[in-house]
Amino acid sequence: MKKVFTVTSEDKTTRARTGQITTAQGPVLTPAFVPDATLGVVKHLSSLELKTMGLQMLLGNIYHLWLRPGVPVVKKMGGLHQFMDWHGPIITDSGGFQVLSLVYKNKMGKVLANGIKFKDHLTGTLHFLTPEKSIDMQLGVGSDILMVLDYPVLENSNLKDNKQSVKLTTAWAKESKNYFDKHSRKDQILMAIIQGAGNMPLRKQSFEELEKVGPFPGYGFGGPPLNEKILAYTASLIPQDRIRYVMGGGTPRDIIKAVAMGWDLFDCVIPTRNARHGLLYTFKGEVRISQTKYKLDKKPIEADCPCLACQTYTKAYLRHLFKAKEPLALRLFSLHNLTFYMRFMKRIRKSIETERFSALLKNY
Amino acid sequence: MKKVFTVTSEDKTTRARTGQITTAQGPVLTPAFVPDATLGVVKHLSSLELKTMGLQMLLGNIYHLWLRPGVPVVKKMGGLHQFMDWHGPIITDSGGFQVLSLVYKNKMGKVLANGIKFKDHLTGTLHFLTPEKSIDMQLGVGSDILMVLDYPVLENSNLKDNKQSVKLTTAWAKESKNYFDKHSRKDQILMAIIQGAGNMPLRKQSFEELEKVGPFPGYGFGGPPLNEKILAYTASLIPQDRIRYVMGGGTPRDIIKAVAMGWDLFDCVIPTRNARHGLLYTFKGEVRISQTKYKLDKKPIEADCPCLACQTYTKAYLRHLFKAKEPLALRLFSLHNLTFYMRFMKRIRKSIETERFSALLKNY
Repeated sequence: MKKVFTVTSEDKTTRARTGQITTAQGPVLTPAFVPDATLGVVKHLSSLELKTMGLQMLLGNIYHLWLRPGVPVVKKMGGLHQFMDWHGPIITDSGGFQVLSLVYKNKMGKVLANGIKFKDHLTGTLHFLTPEKSIDMQLGVGSDILMVLDYPVLENSNLKDNKQSVKLTTAWAKESKNYFDKHSRKDQILMAIIQGAGNMPLRKQSFEELEKVGPFPGYGFGGPPLNEKILAYTASLIPQDRIRYVMGGGTPRDIIKAVAMGWDLFDCVIPTRNARHGLLYTFKGEVRISQTKYKLDKKPIEADCPCLACQTYTKAYLRHLFKAKEPLALRLFSLHNLTFYMRFMKRIRKSIETERFSALLKNY
Repeated sequence: MKKVFTVTSEDKTTRARTGQITTAQGPVLTPAFVPDATLGVVKHLSSLELKTMGLQMLLGNIYHLWLRPGVPVVKKMGGLHQFMDWHGPIITDSGGFQVLSLVYKNKMGKVLANGIKFKDHLTGTLHFLTPEKSIDMQLGVGSDILMVLDYPVLENSNLKDNKQSVKLTTAWAKESKNYFDKHSRKDQILMAIIQGAGNMPLRKQSFEELEKVGPFPGYGFGGPPLNEKILAYTASLIPQDRIRYVMGGGTPRDIIKAVAMGWDLFDCVIPTRNARHGLLYTFKGEVRISQTKYKLDKKPIEADCPCLACQTYTKAYLRHLFKAKEPLALRLFSLHNLTFYMRFMKRIRKSIETERFSALLKNY
């Protein structure tokens, strides 16, 4: 296992730490938040805007890129970095989460021993997603950090399903790793995902099996349940020198609590999705921009925020745009919320480095 | 009549000319194209983007601002310039066009001798738009160039209606001017609108009556019909030292032909609306970005265009965004098309100044 992650400082009273991931496209300072560039774009935002907000890494969704524009198109266009004009690091998911959502929610497929059979949400075409296929596509778009295809179960799953989830997740991680080792560049990173639902012995077993298949330089938390007890326990299983990644988490409060458990990496649609609903984050709390009290508010969302929305517009104007359903509002709010998340993560990193993390944690 | 317009050069073979309008917010070089900032925003674009594309003046729609956020809000927020962070000149329409569309198309109102009674398109509330009310609202948002409330008729109107249109337009221009003279700042400009449908003697009569009420420093062409013969004839009625304004026109081809007739000012939703339909303008012709031939096209929309879309992205990526219905595509296309219009108008001005306008005209 090549060393791609270094812990750079550790908090004395919690398990929080700062670190650095070394990728082909440069370093990622952790704890880090990774916005979702689902279809090769962070909804509403240009690559120039992403570059100016202090963003370190993006997440690409293999399921979506597979369907549109198709992995061969991205590949022929020079890879995802070149295609979307984002030259920093990119992490990709396996596509499994979206595919299993279709299987579970819409009964559009089935999990087999060697992969997932499903019908896509656009045309209903039948596809088969295998561990190798997922890695092949992630390599095809030129990802810097790849995730193995895993098999999460539903929140209310029984012990038999949970065991099957761990078993298939291990088997698929092995197939993923074999394919990755054969076809990847030396500077690409493959991470595994720990399953086991809410069952601690199963979580432990899942990690140990994966570590035997690996060892992997990093592990994702495979949900559900995304509760604090399981999250803390799973973090404690992963060795100190590996990347710990909470996939699909979360709110600022979720994140800082997970950082205290020792987690390093987070991705979530919350900041951008909430932006599109007019819910804005500030260090003084949330702003619901549609509220009448902002009708004549001449102040920005947050005075010391460097984003275009805060540097240019009053809350009154932003409220007007939002209520009139002007798309500019959704762009400005996405820009603001992601800028907030970047500033929030920076504040977390700084507080760990300067031994003030516990004080920051108490505020949340 | 204060002098607010100066002709700076004249083409020798057509009636085209360059000129300069002097407004409270600075000069506007003509021929000029004025994008629609309907609700206090050019759909999809930030004020920063407007500033960097060489845009000279914006059009605010009084009907829309009246309903949302309301003129008192805009006024309390320091006027439309301040509210939307656009510190260049702003021209406003009277609101009449939108209101009459409701009356004609949806039978939601009635034209009376002293104004237009109508129900708005949002809540169906009953309103009464008078000439004074329109001027009062235009002054309320702090417009630099105001338009009188006029009374255009439908394309297929009869002589009696056409005569009534001219009669009311004159009467309303008089009321507008009286109110404007009493309440405006000295550096604001009021322009009238010539009616008379497709009937040349009525067009002449309309201009002469308005000139008696005025004289006005500029005249708009009141449609319909927006055909070449009537457009050329109406331009010829307006003295050389006045601003000639084609309201709601048009495509690049429409514009250059109207410039050749002596028209100076144009506003239209075409570049932004077509952008939202994936129709892009270039100096080599139109690009329909959804076409399959652009699937792997590594070139920008137009190599020498300075807009963010052309400086950053390939046609293949833009096509992907558009087909995936990503809002970033609509923003980038709006940015590109307006940048094209600004470059096109600059090229027209330059060609008139350097006596090469006829050659440029022949290309269209």
